[in-house]
Amino acid sequence: MTRDTPVTAERSTRMSDHTYRVTEIVGTSTEGIDQAIRNGIARAAQTLRNLDWFEVTQTRGQIVNGQIEYYQVGLKVGFRLDDGD
Amino acid sequence: MTRDTPVTAERSTRMSDHTYRVTEIVGTSTEGIDQAIRNGIARAAQTLRNLDWFEVTQTRGQIVNGQIEYYQVGLKVGFRLDDGD
Amino acid sequence: MTRDTPVTAERSTRMSDHTYRVTEIVGTSTEGIDQAIRNGIARAAQTLRNLDWFEVTQTRGQIVNGQIEYYQVGLKVGFRLDDGD
Amino acid sequence: MTRDTPVTAERSTRMSDHTYRVTEIVGTSTEGIDQAIRNGIARAAQTLRNLDWFEVTQTRGQIVNGQIEYYQVGLKVGFRLDDGD
Amino acid sequence: MTRDTPVTAERSTRMSDHTYRVTEIVGTSTEGIDQAIRNGIARAAQTLRNLDWFEVTQTRGQIVNGQIEYYQVGLKVGFRLDDGD
Amino acid sequence: MTRDTPVTAERSTRMSDHTYRVTEIVGTSTEGIDQAIRNGIARAAQTLRNLDWFEVTQTRGQIVNGQIEYYQVGLKVGFRLDDGD
Amino acid sequence: MTRDTPVTAERSTRMSDHTYRVTEIVGTSTEGIDQAIRNGIARAAQTLRNLDWFEVTQTRGQIVNGQIEYYQVGLKVGFRLDDGD
Amino acid sequence: MTRDTPVTAERSTRMSDHTYRVTEIVGTSTEGIDQAIRNGIARAAQTLRNLDWFEVTQTRGQIVNGQIEYYQVGLKVGFRLDDGD
Amino acid sequence: MTRDTPVTAERSTRMSDHTYRVTEIVGTSTEGIDQAIRNGIARAAQTLRNLDWFEVTQTRGQIVNGQIEYYQVGLKVGFRLDDGD
Amino acid sequence: MTRDTPVTAERSTRMSDHTYRVTEIVGTSTEGIDQAIRNGIARAAQTLRNLDWFEVTQTRGQIVNGQIEYYQVGLKVGFRLDDGD
Amino acid sequence: MTRDTPVTAERSTRMSDHTYRVTEIVGTSTEGIDQAIRNGIARAAQTLRNLDWFEVTQTRGQIVNGQIEYYQVGLKVGFRLDDGD
Amino acid sequence: MTRDTPVTAERSTRMSDHTYRVTEIVGTSTEGIDQAIRNGIARAAQTLRNLDWFEVTQTRGQIVNGQIEYYQVGLKVGFRLDDGD
Repeated sequence: MTRDTPVTAERSTRMSDHTYRVTEIVGTSTEGIDQAIRNGIARAAQTLRNLDWFEVTQTRGQIVNGQIEYYQVGLKVGFRLDDGD
Repeated sequence: MTRDTPVTAERSTRMSDHTYRVTEIVGTSTEGIDQAIRNGIARAAQTLRNLDWFEVTQTRGQIVNGQIEYYQVGLKVGFRLDDGD
Repeated sequence: MTRDTPVTAERSTRMSDHTYRVTEIVGTSTEGIDQAIRNGIARAAQTLRNLDWFEVTQTRGQIVNGQIEYYQVGLKVGFRLDDGD
Repeated sequence: MTRDTPVTAERSTRMSDHTYRVTEIVGTSTEGIDQAIRNGIARAAQTLRNLDWFEVTQTRGQIVNGQIEYYQVGLKVGFRLDDGD
Repeated sequence: MTRDTPVTAERSTRMSDHTYRVTEIVGTSTEGIDQAIRNGIARAAQTLRNLDWFEVTQTRGQIVNGQIEYYQVGLKVGFRLDDGD
Repeated sequence: MTRDTPVTAERSTRMSDHTYRVTEIVGTSTEGIDQAIRNGIARAAQTLRNLDWFEVTQTRGQIVNGQIEYYQVGLKVGFRLDDGD
Repeated sequence: MTRDTPVTAERSTRMSDHTYRVTEIVGTSTEGIDQAIRNGIARAAQTLRNLDWFEVTQTRGQIVNGQIEYYQVGLKVGFRLDDGD
Repeated sequence: MTRDTPVTAERSTRMSDHTYRVTEIVGTSTEGIDQAIRNGIARAAQTLRNLDWFEVTQTRGQIVNGQIEYYQVGLKVGFRLDDGD
Repeated sequence: MTRDTPVTAERSTRMSDHTYRVTEIVGTSTEGIDQAIRNGIARAAQTLRNLDWFEVTQTRGQIVNGQIEYYQVGLKVGFRLDDGD
Repeated sequence: MTRDTPVTAERSTRMSDHTYRVTEIVGTSTEGIDQAIRNGIARAAQTLRNLDWFEVTQTRGQIVNGQIEYYQVGLKVGFRLDDGD
Repeated sequence: MTRDTPVTAERSTRMSDHTYRVTEIVGTSTEGIDQAIRNGIARAAQTLRNLDWFEVTQTRGQIVNGQIEYYQVGLKVGFRLDDGD
Repeated sequence: MTRDTPVTAERSTRMSDHTYRVTEIVGTSTEGIDQAIRNGIARAAQTLRNLDWFEVTQTRGQIVNGQIEYYQVGLKVGFRLDDGD
C-alpha cells in the first residue's frame, strides 16, 4: 500500500535507488491492539529516523487472574537508510 | 464461524447450492484497525450486494514523522452470487 | 514475550517443569476486535484456571446489510496444568 | 462462509456475544475423503453439542501393499459454548 | 500441472504473451467436496469466458444437528484475458 | 514499502480514507521474470485505473523439449477505488 | 497418524532405526479427488516398494469449455528404505 | 510416518473407522528440546489414554541473565478416541 | 497455469490418466535469477524426460567481499511419468 | 509462553509499557541443536542486554563426507529496550 | 548459511555453475532429535554422493504406552550433481 | 546451499563455532529484480562486514501511470559476527 498521487518535488529526491531496513519490535499496552502498535512505533521513533511503514506480524497477550494484562503486538518497521546511516 | 441455530424459513430458501465470490480490498483509516475495516466494508457495500463475511489478511500502516498516519487493513470480503450477477 | 525481571519467590515455585495446554476459541463482539478478544478470554476464564497467554490466529466477521454485525477473533489460549488437572 | 439471510427469531437469540471452541480431530475412512470427514464429525457429535462448522487442516492416508488402506482427514471443528459448558 | 504434448495449431495462437486473471469463489454442495467444486466452477462459467484452471484454497463446511449440511470449498479460478476483456 | 517524504499538496488530497482493491493476475513472457511482470501490469492497466502497487505471489513456468517456453508470474495488483468506481 | 496397537512380531523387526524417503507426485483423474489420489498411488506402486503413507499437498484442476476436465492432486508419498535400496 | 508392516491381529481390531483427537500442549525443560518433549508427553499421559503420535509446532525458550532458563516446545498430541470417551 | 485451447489430437493421447513426478533442484548462476533457473532446468533435462513445468520455491545467494557471487534458485520441476519409467 | 504467577514487586516495575526488539541470529555447533542454540544465545548476550526469549525459526546443517559437520539453528531473540537504548 | 571465508583453490573448481538436487527423507531414532537427523543423513550417504546440506522440515514421533517410542525428523537433503549423475 | 569442497585452510579457521546475524532490508531499482537485489546488497555492504548470504523474502513494486516505477525486493542478509562486533 502506498501514497496516492506522486508529486514532482517528491520524485526529484528519489533519483537514486533507496534501500530500506526492516527492524522487528514488540509493542505492548494494557489498553488494546491499536495502542500497543502506537507505543511500539513511538519507542522506535526515539532512535530511528525516517520510519516509513509497519506491518503487524503477530498479536499476543498475557492473562493474569482471567483478564488481559498486556497486549503484545509484533511489528516489522521499515525505515529508509540515509547516506550517513 | 457461522450463525447459530438455523430456522425453518431460512432453510427453505437455501434449497439450491449457492456460490460466493471473494474479493480482496484494503481499508484505510487514520484512527485504528477497527475503523479501517469498517471503512473498507462500507466502500465495498456501495457496489457489491449480499456482502456476507470478511477476513483480515494483513495489517499494515504508514508512518510519517514518527507517527502512524494511516492504518491499512487487507480484507477478503465474501458475497453471495445471485442468479443475475 | 514474557514477564520482565524474575523474582526469587516466583522461581522457587518453578522447580518442577510445568506443562501448559493450549485451547482454541473464537471470541465475538459487535463492537470491535479488542472487545471480541476480551469476551473470548472472559468466557474461557469461567471454566479454565491458570490462563497465562493468548495468541490471535485469525480475525473475521459477519456482514449484514452492508455493515459489520459481528467481529470474530480466533484465539489460542494457553494455561498451566496443575497437578490435579 | 455463513448462513444466508438472517431471520428475526434467530437474531433475538444472539443478543449476547457467544464464544465458540475449536477442537481438532482426525476422521478416518477406508472409502475416501468425504466419508472420513463424515466419520469424524459423527464421532465428535457423540460428545459435543452445538457443533457449528469444520475446516479441513490436512489430508493424509496409509498405504499397504501399494493400495490406500485409510484416508485420514485432519479437521478443526467449532462449536458454540453454552452457559453451562 | 499442464497439458502434455504441445501441438502445432495450439502454439501458433500463443505468439503473444497472454495474461490470466484469477478470481476467488466458494462453491457449496450438500453432497461432498467434488460436487462443491463442480458447482462453483459451473456458476463461474456462467459469467466468465476462457476458464482455464482452478486451485482449492480451503475446505470447510457447516454442521447442523451433528451432521454436515454444507460443504464449502474455496477455489481460485484462472481464466485467460482476451483482447476485448 | 512506500513513497518517501510526504509533501503538502499530496496530503491535502488524502483527507478522505481511500479504499483499495486487489486483483490477482498471471503475467507471462518467453523472456524472463521481469518481462512477465511488466506484461501482466501492462495488460491490467488497459482496463483498471489508478494501479498503485504489485506483489509477486508465485513464479512458475512451462518447459517444452527441456527448455523454458513460458515464465508465468502470479501478481497481486492494488489500485485505488475512485468515488465512481 | 499411525497404526493403533503395536504387536510383538512387528516390534522385533524394528530394532534398527529405519529411514524413509518422501517422493512428490501428481495424480490425475477425470472423476474426482479420491480417484486422482488412487491413480497417483497406484502408479507410484509400480516402481517403488514399501509405500507407507501419503499426504495431499495441493488440489488443482483443468477446466475446458466451463467444465472440469482433470483433477490434479499433489501428493507426498513416503516409503521405507530397505538395506538394498 | 507410520508403523511398518501391518500384522493380522492388529488389522482385525481396526474393522471400525477410528477417530483421533489432537490436543495442543507446551512441554518445558531446563535441559533441552528432547527433554521438554518428553516432559510434555509424560504429563499428557497422566490424563489421556491411547496417546499415539506427536508433532512439534514450535520451539521457544526463556532467557535470564543471558542464559537459557527454560526450553518450551509446542506439541500437537494425537490420541485415539475409545467408544466411551 | 496451463496451455490454452485444447486440440483434438492432444486430447486423444490423454485417454489414460497420467501421473507426474516432482523433483526439487537448486539452479545456480553468477548472472541472475533467470539464468539460475535456466541452468537448473537445462541440467535436469540431461537426465529426465518429459519435463513439463517448474515452480520457484526460494531465491537465495552467496555474497563474497560485499558482492553477489552466486544466485541460487530453488525449483520444483514436474515431469510426466511414461509407462516404462 | 510466560512466567507463572506474577508477584507484586515485579508488577510495580511494569507501570510503563515496555517495547521489545527482536533480532535474528544463527547459532552453530558441531554437537547438536541444543548446543547451537546455546552458542547463539551466549554470543548475543555479549552485546545485548535484557535478553528475554528466543524462538527457533529453522534448523539446518552442513554435511561433509556424508557426516554432519555443523548444525545451524536460526533464532529470533527478543530483548527489552531500556530507556537509554 | 554457508562456509565462511572462501579460499582460492575452492573457487577455481567452481567456474561452472553447479546444480544441486534436494531429496526428502525421514530419519528415525529412539533416542532423540539429533540422533534421528544423524541416522537419516548416514542412510542417505550410503547411496548419494556429494551430500552438502540438510534442513529440518518437521519433527514428529510415535507414542506407545505413554512414552515416546520413535522420534521422526523430516529432512530435505541437498547434494551437488556431478556431470555423470 | 553452501560452498562445495571444503579446503584445509578454511577449516582450521572454523575451530570455534561462529554466530551469524540476519538483518532484513529492502533493495529497490527502476530496472528489475536482479538489480534491486544488487542495490540492496551493495548498500548493506557499506556498513556491515562479512556479508555471507541473502534470501529473498518478497518481491513488490510501485506502479505509476500504469507502469512499474520501482521494484522493491525484501531480503534477509546474513553476516558472520566477529569477536569485536
